[in-house]
Order: sequence, then C-alpha cells, then structure tokens
Amino acid sequence: MATLKLRPVAIDTYRENVAYMHRACNVYHSEGFQALNKIEIHKEDNGTPVIAVLNIVDDETITAPGELGLSEQVFDQLGLPPGTPVKVRHATPPASLDAVHRKIDGEALSREDYFGIIQDIVENRYSKIEMAAFLVGCAETGFERDEVLHLTRAMVESGDRLEWSEPLVADKHCIGGIPGNRTTMLIVPIVAAHGICMPKTSSRAITSPAGTADTMEVLAEVDLPPEKMHEIVQRERACLAWGGTARLAPADDILIAVERPLSMDSPGQMVASILSKKVAAGSSHLLIDIPLGPTAKVRSHQEALRLRKLFEYVGDRMSLTLEVVITDGTQPVGRGIGPVLEARDVMQVLRNDPLAPMDLREKALQLAGRILEFDADVRGGQGYFIARDILDSGRALAKMEAIVEAQGRNPHPPEPGRLVQEITAPRDGRVAAIDNLQMASIARLAGAPLDKGAGVDLVCKVGDPVRRGEVLYRIHADFPANFDFARDAAAQNDGYTLEQD
Amino acid sequence: MATLKLRPVAIDTYRENVAYMHRACNVYHSEGFQALNKIEIHKEDNGTPVIAVLNIVDDETITAPGELGLSEQVFDQLGLPPGTPVKVRHATPPASLDAVHRKIDGEALSREDYFGIIQDIVENRYSKIEMAAFLVGCAETGFERDEVLHLTRAMVESGDRLEWSEPLVADKHCIGGIPGNRTTMLIVPIVAAHGICMPKTSSRAITSPAGTADTMEVLAEVDLPPEKMHEIVQRERACLAWGGTARLAPADDILIAVERPLSMDSPGQMVASILSKKVAAGSSHLLIDIPLGPTAKVRSHQEALRLRKLFEYVGDRMSLTLEVVITDGTQPVGRGIGPVLEARDVMQVLRNDPLAPMDLREKALQLAGRILEFDADVRGGQGYFIARDILDSGRALAKMEAIVEAQGRNPHPPEPGRLVQEITAPRDGRVAAIDNLQMASIARLAGAPLDKGAGVDLVCKVGDPVRRGEVLYRIHADFPANFDFARDAAAQNDGYTLEQD
Repeated sequence: MATLKLRPVAIDTYRENVAYMHRACNVYHSEGFQALNKIEIHKEDNGTPVIAVLNIVDDETITAPGELGLSEQVFDQLGLPPGTPVKVRHATPPASLDAVHRKIDGEALSREDYFGIIQDIVENRYSKIEMAAFLVGCAETGFERDEVLHLTRAMVESGDRLEWSEPLVADKHCIGGIPGNRTTMLIVPIVAAHGICMPKTSSRAITSPAGTADTMEVLAEVDLPPEKMHEIVQRERACLAWGGTARLAPADDILIAVERPLSMDSPGQMVASILSKKVAAGSSHLLIDIPLGPTAKVRSHQEALRLRKLFEYVGDRMSLTLEVVITDGTQPVGRGIGPVLEARDVMQVLRNDPLAPMDLREKALQLAGRILEFDADVRGGQGYFIARDILDSGRALAKMEAIVEAQGRNPHPPEPGRLVQEITAPRDGRVAAIDNLQMASIARLAGAPLDKGAGVDLVCKVGDPVRRGEVLYRIHADFPANFDFARDAAAQNDGYTLEQD
Repeated sequence: MATLKLRPVAIDTYRENVAYMHRACNVYHSEGFQALNKIEIHKEDNGTPVIAVLNIVDDETITAPGELGLSEQVFDQLGLPPGTPVKVRHATPPASLDAVHRKIDGEALSREDYFGIIQDIVENRYSKIEMAAFLVGCAETGFERDEVLHLTRAMVESGDRLEWSEPLVADKHCIGGIPGNRTTMLIVPIVAAHGICMPKTSSRAITSPAGTADTMEVLAEVDLPPEKMHEIVQRERACLAWGGTARLAPADDILIAVERPLSMDSPGQMVASILSKKVAAGSSHLLIDIPLGPTAKVRSHQEALRLRKLFEYVGDRMSLTLEVVITDGTQPVGRGIGPVLEARDVMQVLRNDPLAPMDLREKALQLAGRILEFDADVRGGQGYFIARDILDSGRALAKMEAIVEAQGRNPHPPEPGRLVQEITAPRDGRVAAIDNLQMASIARLAGAPLDKGAGVDLVCKVGDPVRRGEVLYRIHADFPANFDFARDAAAQNDGYTLEQD
C-alpha cells in the first residue's frame, strides 16, 4: 500500500485529533475518504495506529497531494519527524461504542463495558461527538450508583497513581461554582502545620475565573516534577501543585473537552471525575464541599443530599474515608475573583490582616477543622479551635511561606490588571443577592484566569447597605478588548440585586 | 471595537463552521478566546452574526495576526469578499440549549421548545457536540409520540415547501439498510404511466453504497432547478430528481452530519426526518417500506410494528394518507450494489430482460400496486395486477425513457469499475444468509457511491446451491487503493453464510 508524507499543520484543535488531506491527493483517490470520517494513521513499524478526524484541504500550501497534514496535538502524539511516510486506513468505530448505544437505549452497563469505553477514550479512539453521546447517555436518570462506581474505577485504572507511604493522606475538593472560593490555599498550610500529610494537586480553571493552581502560581512555581513534589511533601508535609503533569485519571481530562462547551455537569460524571482523581493522587481521607445556593451548582437541599449520598456510596467502595459538608453558596466567597486578587485575599487571611475577608477565613477554618478531625487524636468538635489557633499564631503563614520557598517563589508576582472600571449602585438600598454565575462570567471576560491580574474585586457583599453611586465592585483587566467585553457584560447585568432598605 | 480582516482558509470542515485565529493576534489578546470556544462573527452592517468554532493557528501563512480565517463553508455562508473587516465576539450558547438540557433530564418538551431548537440548528448556532447531545437526548425511551410530531412540524417549518396543485401527490420511502433495493426507479414510471402524479425527490447516499439520486444520475441529470422539475412533472406526471437543491427540511441535512458518524438512527428521529421531508416536498399520499431481517435496520416484528404505529400517529396528524408495508429484508435486493450496477438491474427489469433479477421486479410490483390503490378508482387487490400489466406491456419502460429524456439523458453513462475481483465459495453448500451490512460496507470501500461504477455484483443469492470455488459475487472498483480496501474487507468476512446441503 502506498504512503503519504507527514506534515505538521500549525493549527491547535484543542483535544481533537484532526488530519488534513488534499482533495486531489495523488496517492489515495481522496473521495473514498469523506470530510469528518475518522482515519487510522499507521507508522511503518506497525505500532498502535493513531486515530484522527479528516478535514479536506483545497490549498497545497497547507497540505499538498501526497502529504498528510496533522494538527499540533496529533503530530505530537505520533512523535515522528516531518516527511516520515505513513499509511492511512479507514478507522473502524471503537469497539466500545456498542456499549454506548446500549446505554442510550437505557441499559445498565457492566464493569467491563466502562473499562472498554474509558480505554478507547484514553487511546483517542473517540471523536468529540462520540464522547458527547457517551456523556449524555450517562447523564440520564438511568445512570445507576454501581455504574458510577464502575466508571470511577475505570478512570483510576486509565492512568498513573501517586504513592505516599503514609497512613493518612488528606485531600479536599469543592464541586465548584462559587467564585473566589480559595479555601484550599488556607486549609493546606493549616493542616500541614498540624502535621497531617496533604500533598495537594489541583487543576487549572476550566470554566471558572481561577483554579487553585492558577492562584498558587501567582506566588510560586506549581508545575513540579514528581520527584520534587515528593521531596517537598517529605519536608513540609504538603504542597500546592498543578496536577496536570501527573497523568492522573487522564480520561477525565479528555472528557472535559466536551463537558465544558456542553455545560454538562451531571452528578454521576461529577462524582466519578472527582473521586477518580483523588484515588489516583493517593488520597486516603477526603473532605468534599458542596456549596448550596440559588446561583450555585446545587440549588436545593434535596439535590445536595442526593449528591452527598452518591459521593458516600462510591467513596466507601473505593476505600476512601470521605466526609461531605454542605456549605453556604449564596454569593462569592472573599473579595477577589481572579488569580491575583484571590491570592491577595488568601495572604491577607494568613497574615491576620484586619482587612482580610472574614467569610473566607471562617469557611477555611470550618473545613480545616473537619480535616484535622481525621486525626484520631483530635476530639470531635475541637478541629475548628485547633485550626484557629494555628492561623492566629502565624504558624499557618510560616508553613505557607515554607511551601512557597520549597516550590520556588515567583520573583515577579503579577499585579492586579491596570485597566479598572468601577461598577456603582444604581440607587440606594441593601445588597440582597450576588449572582455567582454572572460575576464569574464578568471575571472571565476580563481575561481571568489566563491574564493573572484580570478579574473582579468585590467591595460590597450581601447584607451591605449602599448609596446610589457607591462602588459595588471593580473590574480589572490588562487588555483593552477583554476590558470592553467585561464592561459590556456588567452594563447589561451587573450581577447585584438591591432591595429597598 | 477593533476589527479583523476576513481570510478564506481552503479547508473543508464538512458541516461544522470553523474559524481560525492566530495565537499572537494583534487585535485581540487571543487567549481570551480558547480553542473550541464558539465565536460570533459580525458584519459591519450588523446583520445576523454567523457562529463558528475557533481553532488557534501558529502559522501566519494560514492565518496571520489581524486576520480571521474561515473554513470554506462558513466563508461561503458569510458571503463577504476576503479582506472585509469583521468584528468578533464570544458567542452566547443558543437559547434553546436549555431545552436540550431539560430533555436530557427526562422532561417532555413542548412544541415551542422544538421550534426553538430547530431554528437555532438551521441558523448554525449549534456545534456538533450540541447536536449530538440533542440527538442522544431524543434517542431515549422517554421520547414521546407527541414530541416526534412537534419535531416533525418544526423541521417542515424550517425550510421551503413544494406545491403541486394536485389532489393526489404520491410518494414512497424505504427506511433503508438493504443494499440494491432500488425499487423507486421502477415504481415511479409504473405509477406515472397509470396517471398518478409522483414528483420524486431523493437523497444521495449517506451511509449506503447508493441512493436513488446517485443511481438515477447514471442515466440522466438529477440536479434540476424547481421550474424545470415542475415542467417535467406537468408533462410526464413524474420525475426522479435530487432533492438537495430545494431546501426541504434543511435542519435534517444538518443533523445528518452528526447522525452519520454516530450511527444514530432512533425511531423518533427517523420518523421526523422522513415525514418532514415528504410533507415539505408536497406529498399527500405516502407508502413506507420497512424491511425486516437479521441484518436489516429493523430486526424483530415487534420493533417493526412499533415503528409502523409511530409513522401512522405522526402521518395522520400531518394530514398525510400513509400506508406502511413490512417487507423481506433478509438479504440484498437484486444483484447490483452501487450506482451503475443498480441502474443496470433497473433497466433489465423495465426491458423485461430474461436476466432481470426477479426479486427486485416482484418487490417493485407489490409496492407500486399499493400506491396505485391510493387511486379511488382502483379496486382493493387490483393494484398489483395493474402494475404488472404496465410493466409487461413496456409502458413503464416508455415512461422511464420519457423521464430520462426530459431530465436530460447522460451522454456518457459510466461503466462498471474495471478492477474486478471474484469472491468464491470456500466449500460446497447452499447460501443460507447474506449480510446486508457487510455487503454495503464492501461496496462503499470499493468506492460507491462517489465512484459510480464501483460496488458489488451478486451472483448467488440465498437458497442457491454452490460448489467450492464457484463465484459468489464480484467486486468492481476504479481506483487501486479502494480496490485493496474492499478486497481486504471481503477476505476478512465475505458476508456469506453457507450451510451443508
């Protein structure tokens, strides 16, 4: 069979493999292949083929007849130099797609089915629309608890696992949706100062204005090689690293590429995604934070309880010691939304600054207290007071500084964005509500999390009385276009509800 | 707000709008946009924006900073010359996506919901993964009959309608899945010779080796402007045209771009897709053919009955006179699979050639007979005999020749592919089964329908005794690569089951 010469095409198609073939390709009568068909790309030495979706090209400067163009991520995945001859075949649909069709037809799938699906996803055999079909099939009411367990196990097995050789490895996770909720950066130094091991790996923001990794990066290096992370944890009992390098439950990272634009966040997928990452990261004890509020992810107490029970069911069977707390999710936590502004809030709390946001401090103490009680020597109800003592005494700050030094302090910490717009109260009243979704959206439009200094700085919170013209919050941005997007969004809906006093 | 200059990028992304922006775009800090985000492209005059998915480019020869590259289909859709300044905004998710999420959550949607979804789809506001989510949501057991009706109505309203000013406009449709089943090209001339109006618009093949439009194109022009089609129908009472130019239920054509690679063919989507096209084409009387067999689309009698009732429920409420027949779908119909080979079968039947495949002739007569009985003057049970008389007398052939002349005879009808491989019986026995799916797959790999002469020519059918080494079928192809693909597939699975005689 004849070959095509590899050619990199400098297009970033995010997580979808795309291959480009010229319409008049002189090796294959390219019409036998159709646009959006999937093809298998075979190396000469007959290793595992790589799968890509085909786009047809009519411009020889992009991909000429006789060449096979590959988008950046598939070119990297194949790992062969330009010009290498490869063979191309029609891809057969992934074998596990049959199980997806059975799921769509309402069937409960087996452990083997989920292992097959996740393996095909990790090997990039699924197209985006096939992943969407799988996710929607699992979003249905017919997704049973044991299926969530099978899926979680399959996701853990799909990647690597960290091993800490400790009897108690603590972790915490918030299901998300509340801007400014940066408690992790307070909880980790408090818990580590007490002596509990807490090697925290966090994600970067996907749909939010900042993830813990984005915010920690304002202060220190977060992209740590595994050996360095182990060394830091051995010395400091903790770290605050980005989990992206450590191939933990990689299927989840691939599925997110579809969940994000679809705004899919079904309970089963959420539980499998969170718990698989935690188990793979080597955690033994886990605290889950479910914020509840009218603009939070979870909006009724009943829904929060159902989710809690699903976490408990799967967590118990994965041998995790798991506690779930339902917290106040009626408004953003703290003042800053966006990496630099949130890092400022965190440091103010650690320094016991009188200007520090008290709601962030209180929430962090409550959650840290619950994690401290994972220690058998801590009496029930005493965790909060121990945590407060660690914070007030400056031991938490000292631990944070040690972690920052160990990871590598950022020599040039970024500043808040220099383009500033004040958003003011349109009339006298009292702040009755702040819309989490709208504030997150304004902060993202302003450029967060990629522009570290971009975001929103809240001046008034729920319950505060305001006068007409008084500042409710400030938008920070670094780039004029983003600044305009954020200001336009705030002009349409400022996210605040005022009530007559 | 600053602008970007339009630039066509000669990449065919099939039915997905893709826009390309350079990573270092000097107008927008392009990182505010992420790969796979959707953007709105606004013309200067502020008409309706066009939506596209964003790919990020690292090569200025494809799209430079300051430019906005557009794939072929979105460039055509925008209809502006290269270099035109446009504005770009973050696209808000289509408003109807909320209804899709409610559907996924198990809710029955309203008429208004389906109209909103279909309108957004026709206006290209849905990405492929959003369409996949909608299709899977509707594939569930919870898709109610009234929802199928709402969806059908919405799809009809989304496009144009043909008007024939006739009291009886006949049509027929097979749900597909049986290779070689080219009865339409026999039924239309028989019915028209009797005097019933049958202006047939057909599709090209999507997943099959040949559609009626592909096969008719072997004999005559099928891409007819609406005026010419009306003129031919007025004179000949019928036509055999491609329906693609007429913008009938266009939402369906867009959804097919996702249904095809997903192999989604749920009963509700199938019924809405078929009936919306027929109502839009101006049909008043419709015969539906449901082939039943172990490798057909419908595999149990119960399933066939359920599908029949769904067709009847929706058809009645759309004021169609609708009959459903369940036919033998155990093996391919006729001998040829692929446009040229199927056209040969059809002409053999019309010419009363002694070599004509009798199963194709008999099936066409049965179905034509049922359509003739839509005529109030035909006594129940007499349709078949009238149809046979029209065929045997040569009147059907004469009508077909008249239609071919009117549409424009193909001066250079293509020949069967010159690369020929005979597939032989591995041992003595009797043909017990022929796999519809495998035969269709081999014919497509050989190049059908795009290579008109490519396909499969069956020599033995179910029930035939064969000796070891005797020819079961022949593969025809025009291009060596396709020929190899088809031969490899046949070598792995020849699609025939032989039983001991």
